Amino acid sequence: MDKTGATGEVIKIAFQGEPGAYSEAAAIAHYGQELQTTPCETFADVFQAVVEGKTNHGFIPIENSLAGSIHKNFDLLLQHNLYIVAEHHHRIHHCLMAMPGVKSEELREVYSHPQALAQCEKFLSGMTDVRSIISTDTAGSARWIKEQGIRSAGAIASRRAAEVYGMEILAEGIEDDPANYTRFLALACEPEEPGNEESKTSIVITLKHRPGTLHQAVGAFAARGIDLTKIESRPLVGKPWEYLFYLDFIGALNQVEVKDAILELEPLCGLMRVFGSYPRHNWSPEIE
Amino acid sequence: MDKTGATGEVIKIAFQGEPGAYSEAAAIAHYGQELQTTPCETFADVFQAVVEGKTNHGFIPIENSLAGSIHKNFDLLLQHNLYIVAEHHHRIHHCLMAMPGVKSEELREVYSHPQALAQCEKFLSGMTDVRSIISTDTAGSARWIKEQGIRSAGAIASRRAAEVYGMEILAEGIEDDPANYTRFLALACEPEEPGNEESKTSIVITLKHRPGTLHQAVGAFAARGIDLTKIESRPLVGKPWEYLFYLDFIGALNQVEVKDAILELEPLCGLMRVFGSYPRHNWSPEIE
Repeated sequence: MDKTGATGEVIKIAFQGEPGAYSEAAAIAHYGQELQTTPCETFADVFQAVVEGKTNHGFIPIENSLAGSIHKNFDLLLQHNLYIVAEHHHRIHHCLMAMPGVKSEELREVYSHPQALAQCEKFLSGMTDVRSIISTDTAGSARWIKEQGIRSAGAIASRRAAEVYGMEILAEGIEDDPANYTRFLALACEPEEPGNEESKTSIVITLKHRPGTLHQAVGAFAARGIDLTKIESRPLVGKPWEYLFYLDFIGALNQVEVKDAILELEPLCGLMRVFGSYPRHNWSPEIE
Repeated sequence: MDKTGATGEVIKIAFQGEPGAYSEAAAIAHYGQELQTTPCETFADVFQAVVEGKTNHGFIPIENSLAGSIHKNFDLLLQHNLYIVAEHHHRIHHCLMAMPGVKSEELREVYSHPQALAQCEKFLSGMTDVRSIISTDTAGSARWIKEQGIRSAGAIASRRAAEVYGMEILAEGIEDDPANYTRFLALACEPEEPGNEESKTSIVITLKHRPGTLHQAVGAFAARGIDLTKIESRPLVGKPWEYLFYLDFIGALNQVEVKDAILELEPLCGLMRVFGSYPRHNWSPEIE
């Protein structure tokens, strides 16, 4: 994807959270700095901003390597008529931050989103006389402490949140498990034609219920050596214990073997929707 | 499974939530009234109660037909050395309840768990001048209103919660979508030998990563006409974008075709654990 925008204009991106959120940091890492970011309260608002043309793209987390899939965003993909035009794997580096000049020993409380607190449990248990306090947002915790001028409170958030709110980083990379990545998707109103780079394609299907249909469906890819990278099931609302299957696989819609796999798949499916092909973002822990 | 307990003693069951929670109501529906229930604060506490022998069984929700899987409980299954000995499909009937004598028109606030509020959105939007207020628990909302004696507040919870706390039911079956079922699992320290009834078996596997292994794995069941009823993927912590697959299928471990399928599956897997076989609970919306 052209990261500078087709017309050379600044790309507008909607994301969920407050300025400094990990989604914003990931979007900036993906596109570069020439970006106008629009914070949204909910994921649904991100989709809506793209549908209404307020931004070029939405940038949503779809999966974290420790916590798993963000199921709400799978459901929203189905409910909106948008396309996936890019993916980005973003390493989550948690930072402990406080008001400028405050030392770690002065902190009595650390605020953050429950998932961020949970991911820094070992680090936090090494701090003496410090309580962890749950808040709705990582970046929002940093903003609130700075606005209130509370010198006894720290926040766990991204390096970008510290920059946005003028907080001082006391420790970086404080997550217990370094294999902490989030996969983000860029959404747009129109699909993009895949180029020559290696691509991925995302689809959602429902299968006609009889034994062996899942095997046949997966076989449409296996028979052509197409690598399925992800399968996620979600409930089919109104039909208890029937499922939507979201599939990601290597390859692009303009490739013959992908076209053939989809043709073979179609008669097995009640519903099929193709979310588009996009460049595969290779995830390289070694270069971190 | 013998619902009266092997020795004729009252069965002790641990569940998450407060007395009157849907998990408790489902356990009572499954076993009958001769039950001693132990409320636990977290799902992890339910597993721990069984591990420590404080109760015979734990009774946990694993999946809701509208909201999807309860992923925390998939993770806890892997982290504990317990077996699945029963499943139960429980229809979720939400009730609006208030202090005895209070009329619907007097209510200004309705408290419940966010998922219950979301599932009754249409009903709630039909009430005038009423705010929905999020709480951590359905039954706990009913208890709190009764304890505080608040006449302007209602709760959405189970019929059993109204009975437990002496609240009056103002409306029943107020969920927007009647196809609202939760599947529960009963856990025990030892597996149970499946009887002659139709059975289900649950396992978890990781697959060696090369294209086509998922197809081969699913094929081990398809080749024998074994119906896969559920596939759920969860992240493999420490290995970004590799997955645990939790599979449920029809059949019991003492059946030849199931044994053969597992033998064929094993060499494809990095990890395989069998959670046990248990009687299939047929889900019959018609008899509701």
